[in-house]
Amino acid sequence: MKIIEGGIAAAKGFYAAGLFTGIKNKRKDMALVYSKVPCKAAGTFTTNLVKGAPVKYDMEMVKLSPYAQAIVVNSGVANTCTGKTGMEYCRQMAEAVSTNLNIPQDSVLVASTGIIGKQLPMDKILWGIENLAPILGNSPEDGTSAAEAIMTTDTKKKEIAIEFEIGGKTVVMGGMCKGSGMIHPNMCTMLGFITTDISISKELLQEALCTNVQDTYNMISVDGDTSTNDTVLLLADGMAGNPEITERNDDYYKFLEALNYINTYFSKRIAEDGEGATSLLEVNVINADCKEQAKKLSKSIVSSNLTKAAMFGHDLNWGRILCAMGYAGANFNPDTVDLYFESNAGKIKLIENGVEASFNMELAKDIFSESEVIITADIKMGNEKATAWGCDLTYDYVKINAEYSS
Amino acid sequence: MKIIEGGIAAAKGFYAAGLFTGIKNKRKDMALVYSKVPCKAAGTFTTNLVKGAPVKYDMEMVKLSPYAQAIVVNSGVANTCTGKTGMEYCRQMAEAVSTNLNIPQDSVLVASTGIIGKQLPMDKILWGIENLAPILGNSPEDGTSAAEAIMTTDTKKKEIAIEFEIGGKTVVMGGMCKGSGMIHPNMCTMLGFITTDISISKELLQEALCTNVQDTYNMISVDGDTSTNDTVLLLADGMAGNPEITERNDDYYKFLEALNYINTYFSKRIAEDGEGATSLLEVNVINADCKEQAKKLSKSIVSSNLTKAAMFGHDLNWGRILCAMGYAGANFNPDTVDLYFESNAGKIKLIENGVEASFNMELAKDIFSESEVIITADIKMGNEKATAWGCDLTYDYVKINAEYSS
Repeated sequence: MKIIEGGIAAAKGFYAAGLFTGIKNKRKDMALVYSKVPCKAAGTFTTNLVKGAPVKYDMEMVKLSPYAQAIVVNSGVANTCTGKTGMEYCRQMAEAVSTNLNIPQDSVLVASTGIIGKQLPMDKILWGIENLAPILGNSPEDGTSAAEAIMTTDTKKKEIAIEFEIGGKTVVMGGMCKGSGMIHPNMCTMLGFITTDISISKELLQEALCTNVQDTYNMISVDGDTSTNDTVLLLADGMAGNPEITERNDDYYKFLEALNYINTYFSKRIAEDGEGATSLLEVNVINADCKEQAKKLSKSIVSSNLTKAAMFGHDLNWGRILCAMGYAGANFNPDTVDLYFESNAGKIKLIENGVEASFNMELAKDIFSESEVIITADIKMGNEKATAWGCDLTYDYVKINAEYSS
Repeated sequence: MKIIEGGIAAAKGFYAAGLFTGIKNKRKDMALVYSKVPCKAAGTFTTNLVKGAPVKYDMEMVKLSPYAQAIVVNSGVANTCTGKTGMEYCRQMAEAVSTNLNIPQDSVLVASTGIIGKQLPMDKILWGIENLAPILGNSPEDGTSAAEAIMTTDTKKKEIAIEFEIGGKTVVMGGMCKGSGMIHPNMCTMLGFITTDISISKELLQEALCTNVQDTYNMISVDGDTSTNDTVLLLADGMAGNPEITERNDDYYKFLEALNYINTYFSKRIAEDGEGATSLLEVNVINADCKEQAKKLSKSIVSSNLTKAAMFGHDLNWGRILCAMGYAGANFNPDTVDLYFESNAGKIKLIENGVEASFNMELAKDIFSESEVIITADIKMGNEKATAWGCDLTYDYVKINAEYSS
């Protein structure tokens, strides 16, 4: 597996573009992704009962339409809580992409992110689609331009591409995603788009995505708010020329491994770029009875406001971590827990069997002051484990969210 | 029902005192509550799997001991994650109170709040008990002194007393409580102590408390972190001389009403004095199918970091409220929701059937800028309702919690 350039436009046959259309004040706000040939498409979507119009639209398209060939995305306005008008605007976006790219309307997927409750400015959206179509390209700059256009409060663009071998052929997979608030995915994260030239059946493409988001996007939390618009879309155009994957064979697991690499990479980038965040928190719960238990405990820790605020202050208030485990809704024995802190500065055991271990306080503070901290809780019950990612809670989180729609 | 002075020491036979012993740097840090005669005792405790030693101690005492006659409380150190030593310190605290007040050791309840993971400084605790016993009193100043001594990051003491008639007798009920972080009670809140001179059976006393905390303390959230030390204790010494309440008759419901008055009062005071809070948020969900649904939805709204940050910024980002309802885990139809905002500045309908209603934006901002805001969501499904309380999320919340143990 090798990291390469190109992001969402890296895989054979894929093109991308990003543009400023005026939906937002300054930054690029629309992206278009296009495949020369029809693709198999898979998608996972928010479990929030309040779903954005684009989520409802895509859920149906991914399920019913045999192929997808383009994704159009806008940032700035989420098209959520917008009633029938919102649904009609999704259709109009797809129609405009269909006309401009000369592809079937039911092969266009749509996504929106931004403020809830406002209608899309359709004049800007339609102007954007008209002007994105002619500038589609497959250079690294084109991928980057699209990745920039889907950002909202993100401070960094998030893209990656990798190549690997399957059936003697070089396969490429690339993607882009965006955070960074209302992040507590349940099914998938905010917006993530992945393209690959692998040849695979639609069923296995969907299965791979559904399986993998459980261990990646669903294990991050920035603020505990599950968005209304969470969407991950995965397109495969088959142009790598590998023998089509139609069963769970070695090729499938190689593909799953590559998908996991990209989704884990994105999960960490989203967590560390959480609104206002200054650091990435990785939490491992090991030696659990079952995976579900390890997931609940690790996710509870990364979701705890008190732990997150303590992390921001580099304040070694470890009781908050045990407290967060205690209300996670998973059973364990507090009196047998060991807790480790680890970062570039070193590793220490902070708690042994539920009470404070003797450790070097200076070293502990140094470890907790790094921009990436790993906490490991050994609950000594079995052999299962899980990892969750989060970030610290800072003044800037409050600032960003106190002023967001103003 | 009449509000009177005296707080925890208002009811006949009850005495209280507060003292600075040096556990904390400056403020009073120990309180003692004493009843001249043995009391029936009821208690509710945290559901966190990680329970402070005093919680484990009291759970057993309330269950097994026939009477209670004193409560000793310290702030500054929680005596949690302290192993066998922590349990032994609870016993030593009870023993010292027993000796100093000449009452049975199993009639002493203990409570601690503060940092997790440190052992209690027993020299200061024992000195405190010795010096609290002689200064017990039943003036309003004594009640206030005790209420001050249990505060941690609270900015205001929380106490109240009321009197009401039962069976031709005047009954008094008073109490004190403390917040203000790690507040997301599940069974009860941080620390709440209520004393009353009513005559009632132990079974009904416990039943009344258990029932009422479901609608009061369990409906507040400051930060989503359920504490390890949540405790509410209710003592009744019977000195009012009313016919003992031994069944769910009118007298019982009058008592329940009084208890609800005090617990609702405390719930609102804890929410509005949440760490760093500048405002109180009250959320009503009305016309729900069942109470559980209304509770889940209302509690999800007051717990949403994004809603809370928007409230701090007086930012009318109502989509976050619908979003929080959507991930509450309770079923409803987003397309039929009406949403109202109300405060001293007026009342408006912000959402009608799931989409933005037409309203006066200036008035809406004025309403949202008051220090007490009521949000009502009408979900049009049935006749049940619930109320939850919370506060805004501010820079100061982060500041307080980034530096708490340093």
